[in-house]
Amino acid sequence: MGSLHRFTGEKGDFEWEDVEAEAYDSPGVRAVSVRWLIGPQEGAGHFAMRYFEIEPGGETPLDSHEHDHGVMVLRGKGRVLVGDDSVDVSFGDMIYVSPREEHRFKCLGQEPFGFLCVIPSKRDTHE
Amino acid sequence: MGSLHRFTGEKGDFEWEDVEAEAYDSPGVRAVSVRWLIGPQEGAGHFAMRYFEIEPGGETPLDSHEHDHGVMVLRGKGRVLVGDDSVDVSFGDMIYVSPREEHRFKCLGQEPFGFLCVIPSKRDTHE
Repeated sequence: MGSLHRFTGEKGDFEWEDVEAEAYDSPGVRAVSVRWLIGPQEGAGHFAMRYFEIEPGGETPLDSHEHDHGVMVLRGKGRVLVGDDSVDVSFGDMIYVSPREEHRFKCLGQEPFGFLCVIPSKRDTHE
Repeated sequence: MGSLHRFTGEKGDFEWEDVEAEAYDSPGVRAVSVRWLIGPQEGAGHFAMRYFEIEPGGETPLDSHEHDHGVMVLRGKGRVLVGDDSVDVSFGDMIYVSPREEHRFKCLGQEPFGFLCVIPSKRDTHE
């Protein structure tokens, strides 16, 4: 069966019905949360869609793994390192991170930096 | 190598650098376009992210296939039929369409209805 998670965000915040924010704990992570919007819980067996939010001053660690990422920026401004490139991004920008490509996401400014991140279901055990 | 498609939409429109809108031709389709944001052209081998836009009065045909869909609404209002359920949706709502589940997307109101649609790379030859 399919499923629906209603968007319930107000005043610029991003929230969904029946979706909890989880702390994104990993070495080097600062002030990052993740909300699983579509994934195993919805019965999705091929891909997952997660919403990440990084608080002002926060960032993800420099990371690299076998699975790829498809990212759409939804909130605020961020700096994304992908391979040798560093780009500043905002609403609607689409970033593709290839397998084994180094990457890091960082919040710029005073608003949280939020983005949708798609991954294949088969991936490394760490993110 | 990864890639970046900058969002270039203005005045509520959705457009991206180096991404062309294609007419979405399929029997029963009315006034639907698709933009491939991340897919084979970016080297993505596991999933694809496309932006669909349905003009006022338009809709997709009733469809059902082996691959699943993950959808995030980005623009306007729409009515989505999934299985036996019909729901009206707007910005941020997340819809998961399971494999072999009947579905149809329809624009409500006077603004185009736009949504991000994720699919696994391995799918039926028709959408």
